[in-house]
Amino acid sequence: MWFVGARGSVATTATVGLAALAEGLAAPVGLTTAGPEFDGVALPAFGDLVVGGHDVDDTPLVERARRLASGGMLPARLVEAVAPRLDAVDADLRLLPRTPRGTQRDEIERRAADIRDFRERHGLARVVVIDVASTEPLPADRPEFHDRAALEAVLDDPASERLPSSTLSAIAAVAAAGAPYACFTPSLSLGIPALQDLAAESGVPVAGQDGKTGETLLRTVLAPMFASRGMRVLSWAGANLLGGGDGATLADPGAVQSKLVSKNRGLHDLLGDDVVTPLHIDNVPDLGDLKTAWDHVHAEGFLDTRITLQTTWSAYDSTLAAPLVIDLARLLSLADGAGVTGPVAELGYFFKDPWGSDVHAFARQADDLVSWALRTAVRRSAAQVA
Amino acid sequence: MWFVGARGSVATTATVGLAALAEGLAAPVGLTTAGPEFDGVALPAFGDLVVGGHDVDDTPLVERARRLASGGMLPARLVEAVAPRLDAVDADLRLLPRTPRGTQRDEIERRAADIRDFRERHGLARVVVIDVASTEPLPADRPEFHDRAALEAVLDDPASERLPSSTLSAIAAVAAAGAPYACFTPSLSLGIPALQDLAAESGVPVAGQDGKTGETLLRTVLAPMFASRGMRVLSWAGANLLGGGDGATLADPGAVQSKLVSKNRGLHDLLGDDVVTPLHIDNVPDLGDLKTAWDHVHAEGFLDTRITLQTTWSAYDSTLAAPLVIDLARLLSLADGAGVTGPVAELGYFFKDPWGSDVHAFARQADDLVSWALRTAVRRSAAQVA
Amino acid sequence: MWFVGARGSVATTATVGLAALAEGLAAPVGLTTAGPEFDGVALPAFGDLVVGGHDVDDTPLVERARRLASGGMLPARLVEAVAPRLDAVDADLRLLPRTPRGTQRDEIERRAADIRDFRERHGLARVVVIDVASTEPLPADRPEFHDRAALEAVLDDPASERLPSSTLSAIAAVAAAGAPYACFTPSLSLGIPALQDLAAESGVPVAGQDGKTGETLLRTVLAPMFASRGMRVLSWAGANLLGGGDGATLADPGAVQSKLVSKNRGLHDLLGDDVVTPLHIDNVPDLGDLKTAWDHVHAEGFLDTRITLQTTWSAYDSTLAAPLVIDLARLLSLADGAGVTGPVAELGYFFKDPWGSDVHAFARQADDLVSWALRTAVRRSAAQVA
Amino acid sequence: MWFVGARGSVATTATVGLAALAEGLAAPVGLTTAGPEFDGVALPAFGDLVVGGHDVDDTPLVERARRLASGGMLPARLVEAVAPRLDAVDADLRLLPRTPRGTQRDEIERRAADIRDFRERHGLARVVVIDVASTEPLPADRPEFHDRAALEAVLDDPASERLPSSTLSAIAAVAAAGAPYACFTPSLSLGIPALQDLAAESGVPVAGQDGKTGETLLRTVLAPMFASRGMRVLSWAGANLLGGGDGATLADPGAVQSKLVSKNRGLHDLLGDDVVTPLHIDNVPDLGDLKTAWDHVHAEGFLDTRITLQTTWSAYDSTLAAPLVIDLARLLSLADGAGVTGPVAELGYFFKDPWGSDVHAFARQADDLVSWALRTAVRRSAAQVA
Ligand SMILES: NC(=O)c1ccc[n+]([C@@H]2O[C@H](COP(=O)([O-])OP(=O)(O)OC[C@H]3O[C@@H](n4cnc5c(N)ncnc54)[C@H](O)[C@@H]3O)[C@@H](O)[C@H]2O)c1
Ligand SMILES: NC(=O)c1ccc[n+]([C@@H]2O[C@H](COP(=O)([O-])OP(=O)(O)OC[C@H]3O[C@@H](n4cnc5c(N)ncnc54)[C@H](O)[C@@H]3O)[C@@H](O)[C@H]2O)c1
Ligand SMILES: NC(=O)c1ccc[n+]([C@@H]2O[C@H](COP(=O)([O-])OP(=O)(O)OC[C@H]3O[C@@H](n4cnc5c(N)ncnc54)[C@H](O)[C@@H]3O)[C@@H](O)[C@H]2O)c1
Ligand SMILES: NC(=O)c1ccc[n+]([C@@H]2O[C@H](COP(=O)([O-])OP(=O)(O)OC[C@H]3O[C@@H](n4cnc5c(N)ncnc54)[C@H](O)[C@@H]3O)[C@@H](O)[C@H]2O)c1
Ligand code: NA
Ligand code: NA
Repeated sequence: MWFVGARGSVATTATVGLAALAEGLAAPVGLTTAGPEFDGVALPAFGDLVVGGHDVDDTPLVERARRLASGGMLPARLVEAVAPRLDAVDADLRLLPRTPRGTQRDEIERRAADIRDFRERHGLARVVVIDVASTEPLPADRPEFHDRAALEAVLDDPASERLPSSTLSAIAAVAAAGAPYACFTPSLSLGIPALQDLAAESGVPVAGQDGKTGETLLRTVLAPMFASRGMRVLSWAGANLLGGGDGATLADPGAVQSKLVSKNRGLHDLLGDDVVTPLHIDNVPDLGDLKTAWDHVHAEGFLDTRITLQTTWSAYDSTLAAPLVIDLARLLSLADGAGVTGPVAELGYFFKDPWGSDVHAFARQADDLVSWALRTAVRRSAAQVA
Repeated sequence: MWFVGARGSVATTATVGLAALAEGLAAPVGLTTAGPEFDGVALPAFGDLVVGGHDVDDTPLVERARRLASGGMLPARLVEAVAPRLDAVDADLRLLPRTPRGTQRDEIERRAADIRDFRERHGLARVVVIDVASTEPLPADRPEFHDRAALEAVLDDPASERLPSSTLSAIAAVAAAGAPYACFTPSLSLGIPALQDLAAESGVPVAGQDGKTGETLLRTVLAPMFASRGMRVLSWAGANLLGGGDGATLADPGAVQSKLVSKNRGLHDLLGDDVVTPLHIDNVPDLGDLKTAWDHVHAEGFLDTRITLQTTWSAYDSTLAAPLVIDLARLLSLADGAGVTGPVAELGYFFKDPWGSDVHAFARQADDLVSWALRTAVRRSAAQVA
Repeated sequence: MWFVGARGSVATTATVGLAALAEGLAAPVGLTTAGPEFDGVALPAFGDLVVGGHDVDDTPLVERARRLASGGMLPARLVEAVAPRLDAVDADLRLLPRTPRGTQRDEIERRAADIRDFRERHGLARVVVIDVASTEPLPADRPEFHDRAALEAVLDDPASERLPSSTLSAIAAVAAAGAPYACFTPSLSLGIPALQDLAAESGVPVAGQDGKTGETLLRTVLAPMFASRGMRVLSWAGANLLGGGDGATLADPGAVQSKLVSKNRGLHDLLGDDVVTPLHIDNVPDLGDLKTAWDHVHAEGFLDTRITLQTTWSAYDSTLAAPLVIDLARLLSLADGAGVTGPVAELGYFFKDPWGSDVHAFARQADDLVSWALRTAVRRSAAQVA
Repeated sequence: MWFVGARGSVATTATVGLAALAEGLAAPVGLTTAGPEFDGVALPAFGDLVVGGHDVDDTPLVERARRLASGGMLPARLVEAVAPRLDAVDADLRLLPRTPRGTQRDEIERRAADIRDFRERHGLARVVVIDVASTEPLPADRPEFHDRAALEAVLDDPASERLPSSTLSAIAAVAAAGAPYACFTPSLSLGIPALQDLAAESGVPVAGQDGKTGETLLRTVLAPMFASRGMRVLSWAGANLLGGGDGATLADPGAVQSKLVSKNRGLHDLLGDDVVTPLHIDNVPDLGDLKTAWDHVHAEGFLDTRITLQTTWSAYDSTLAAPLVIDLARLLSLADGAGVTGPVAELGYFFKDPWGSDVHAFARQADDLVSWALRTAVRRSAAQVA
């Protein structure tokens, strides 16, 4: 497992959690792949997953973990218990320059080299790269986004406007290092037409985008209920309060825009474009990593009757995200072993904005994921036998 | 359609609504069977459904409807617009004595005669009987509940302790009148071992029990999310506030007990028996038919993290129930036409405590319902051709 | 009573309500001045209040009232019962041009003439003018706002940038017509330094600004609790959902800004400037006039403990505002009769942003209001005797 | 300070907190007496308060504190930092037998002796006794509750039915040890007619009863708003979820009854007896000491309009209570020094069911408390000078 944003809240929580799982200090609560439906599916054991990654920050990992513990998100004694493992991971983290120099091709190559080096050093069968870096503002459209050759040219041109870092990391993983890749953020990443076929060509499975953890998860669970019962949802308003690193990032109007678009996509897909969906994300530093989201749904029922539903969801966001990240690493490893390539639609279960799929209804996604995992496990055994 | 409890809030709303649908004064909002998944399934048209029923009260239907309108549940002008149809239905309602005399067999026969008479008078292909009467206290267990012969004997014994009225109505419908039957209440009805095979023997389809409309619907939508994501639900507390007829009935500790048991069944089935599930229903007369339910869910996530979800659902209960009652009439009519007999597990979609099924997860039920409807429609066409 | 914005939701509700009170069709629920603390205070009787006003729209009042009734805010039969009174009021409403011509002095004089004419036609002792027109964007500061002479010059200069309509109406009432005046909106009105002494000079009492009805009322009730108990409020976030005319107006970023500033003022005054107070108002047309506001308060208690409070307030906004408007008319009439002039600090009870006062704590305001009313009643009797 | 129930959650939190305040490890957040209004009032310094007490349990205090820390209520490092002080307090705690032997007079005398001994050992000017023991079921009325002589006789009769322990402790404090006393629980304590004048006779100030901390505090803050604005509250429903020691105690139907009565008293006093007030307290062990309360208020506004308010309050109950207990100790010490005797009405600010007062409105109570404290401080200086 290679994290882009390896010292962030999600990555740190995943790293601490993986260490705790490996040492038997924590139960696999919050992991989908630990459920009974996955019994018999050959996924990598927690103890076999090794963590490395990139970040633009170099605060020691154990330091980041302690801060999360003091904010109430992680048990303090757990952090201390796995501190040696965190220090070991630290040795596998590579610092990215905040403003890279040279051509973008060089930068991609340097990032890919770090990944390959990590794979070799640890003698790993494969490295799954997961982007959990800070959300970037979405750039304006550009001609080279629609033309592969133009894009390649830009990579070699030191004077051209730079692609977002998420896109460079995605290319490094998929094309240059041949690594399965998941994008857990709403950043641009592979989301440009010219890169649509990159993963399939490179022969690796990819999955995205923007982890579906709290309010959005709830929405894609609840919206199908209204649809099935024939109730007409008129509006679905949302207010999100959070602090922490993600809160600070999303206080930037550019970054928050990527997130808002991603969050409302499922609702419109499930309920139609007429639903009024005001949505806000506020940075409330005193709340730390404890995110609170309030939703207000107004639906019309039989004979013009007014139905309202309010939900308040409150959870430490990164402890929701971290197990999904581990799930993704295990499932992409399975997929890669089975020879799956390109965007894996069934991994849409984990995302607000699923690549390769229009399915947002959570129960449907859950069914699809389980049967995909079973099929893929069979395919993999077949592959191994052959 | 024959309602037991025909002058109650649910039945009155369904009758008003059916009239409005028949006259094109209302859109089929809130009806599952009006959804696109049911396109092509040959269900009875709204205009072809005729309403009759039993009640122990004889307030004119239009009077009941006006009371509901003044409480805000129904649009007043709609009630006036369909008043002539309500008066017509009134002529098809039969008064039940609050304390019937004679043997229970006689009482059953009198109820069945009313139903048969209604069928003949209107020249109907079939009459679907739906129990929407006041919730009864659950009686203590008795030996004859477990022995069909003993039960039959009791029916002829004028001195024996009486069965609940819901059971008499169910036997009247299913066995004596040969009518498809649905139990929308948590009352005893067919829920005794000795009557388990009654519907299959009588050659009619039946469905139950206790309509799943508000808080319980939400719970069976949300609980599978926690399960799928591996979160451990520790407690799920609920508070229900309602007035109206149902509120007054449930202020009786005996009656509310039937309801509470029924409401919590799905949660334990979906999440296990360890979940702590305090639940209250309070009669708050000033709220009228507008029911408000607050739920508080506490789950444990990854690394012992605390997750809480609160939901507040607020709706006019009978406008949630009425379209389901119409859906049930249409689907049981389809089933009967296709020769389906006994408890229809797939109609569990509509109930808190599904007969013939252990499936409570709502999305699963929705899938099952749709594919059952399609299969049954095909079976019916085949039956008609043959 | 002379309404600026006389055909709006608040004014129409107040007019319907006053008619209903006068005819004994409604109880004085929601009125502060009908409470036992005001027993013996000589306030004008409901039947003695006559309504006139300005608006830029000319939809008949009964039409506006019917729309409000169909949205659920007013009982339909009440509107019909008072329809003749509404038609009578219609004859006393004067249309304002949306873009007035001529000098601003002319415009002021025309508005004042309408008010004087109304007073004479009905033989009224006094006319209280209340601004309940649409919220205006706040204009940028200008030199003439700080210099009375410059301001007067501008009024005569047809080429100068125009003052907001609320300011013209306020000057018309206070200076030109000598009428007591209340500003129920967050618009500029008299809120410019050069007009600070206008009311005192003109010898009339004035009160403002921006009616305190729902969420803000709650906040000024709750905030003093935290302060008294020594809890440190860290953040107070708010989300407001509303449709109706006010919702549409506040969808304009300029107008909403006036409102947001006004809404947060009390909180900072009561809890200090460090409290983080994100606040949103969303136009959700399907909600109509039923406003729903969610607040989330995070406070620190003893030994760094986390305290959270959420509130959800839901009410028809104009039925909250209308009785306050009637209260204000009665109390300003009392004040004027007692010779009170200038901003009445104790009427701050009714406002988000009280003129002449820094007191926001609601209970304190309530105490102050009652004792002011008693003192003023005594002063008035003395004045009448003398 | 002498705690009855000294090893309970509230007492332990107060003891830890006092140690932290004394050592400067915590700020006086959550304490009313630390507010600016009390500047200049001569209250005992935190460092001058010494803790002793009774309990029927003998788990070491530091052990209890660690359990609270692991449940998230207290910062773990704080507990360790004050552990030596907790150990010192342990030496001043005396074990009460769960079923005392001998006459009740003997038992009272033994308890009083412990208090006097503590006072002498530490050379204290006075000991304030505060009952924070488990809530007791309220006993049925008895003749001796109404007749002082009969009561005295009972105390000497080894065969008579025993008074509740809270009453024995109160008599021990007030009459036998001459100590100021506060009852923080809803238990019987001095709440029997025959003991009404005991405190005045004994020459000590007393205060009660049942600490007002969370939901009830909120209610007495909010209810006066509805009353002042003339809104008619129709129902006020409440649901309380809590675990911890208090949760377990209140799972007993007898104990919870004392609490429910106490909790609803203020509401009826403030809003009238017609308000419908269903209220539940559920023991939800997984929530630990984090109490969550949901309230739903339904009021009628102008023109029959429906107003609803929901509140969700969530806090660690004992960190709300502990600072009040410290406030009470300081203020009762002041009162005693000033020669105040009998029930102190103005300390009703701290209680659900105020002794000597009918005032429940919180803002009124806060004003009364502050001015009482100032008056009493003056009286005390005068007493000291004289
Ligand atoms: N539930 C969730 O937590 C959740 C759900 C969906 C999506 N996400 C997304 O996951 C991402 C991480 O969230 P977080 O809470 O861990 O945020 P965070 O701010 O704590 O961590 C982000 C990390 O990325 C690093 N970073 C920034 N720019 C980088 C770059 N160009 N290359 C490499 N590293 C870089 C930062 O230094 C930081 O360590 C965010 O984009 C967030 O939107 C999180
Ligand atoms: N959303 C919902 O409204 C909902 C959901 C699930 C279940 N239910 C159940 O539906 C039933 C009806 O609810 P409602 O709100 O209409 O109640 P209601 O009190 O308005 O109506 C009940 C009617 O049944 C009649 N009745 C009583 N005893 C009878 C008997 N022995 N035979 C025939 N009629 C009798 C009453 O006179 C009344 O007209 C209740 O049992 C309720 O629990 C309703
Ligand atoms: N609870 C409340 O309803 C509440 C509370 C505080 C403040 N307010 C304020 O009261 C005002 C009225 O609210 P509403 O819901 O009635 O809004 P509304 O949109 O229903 O009515 C506003 C009326 O003002 C008229 N108008 C617009 N510009 C005008 C002008 N220049 N001169 C005269 N009339 C003009 C409009 O034609 C309309 O009839 C708003 O400013 C609102 O912010 C309302
Ligand atoms: N916010 C609050 O926490 C709050 C508010 C109002 C009232 N109260 C009341 O304060 C009391 C204490 O609450 P808690 O959460 O600390 O409960 P707890 O269960 O944690 O502590 C109660 C303590 O009292 C001891 N005890 C039991 N019987 C006793 C007896 N006869 N004599 C001496 N000690 C005895 C128990 O052993 C225990 O240590 C309860 O009555 C509660 O209702 C608490
Ligand atoms: Na997609
Ligand atoms: Na009292």
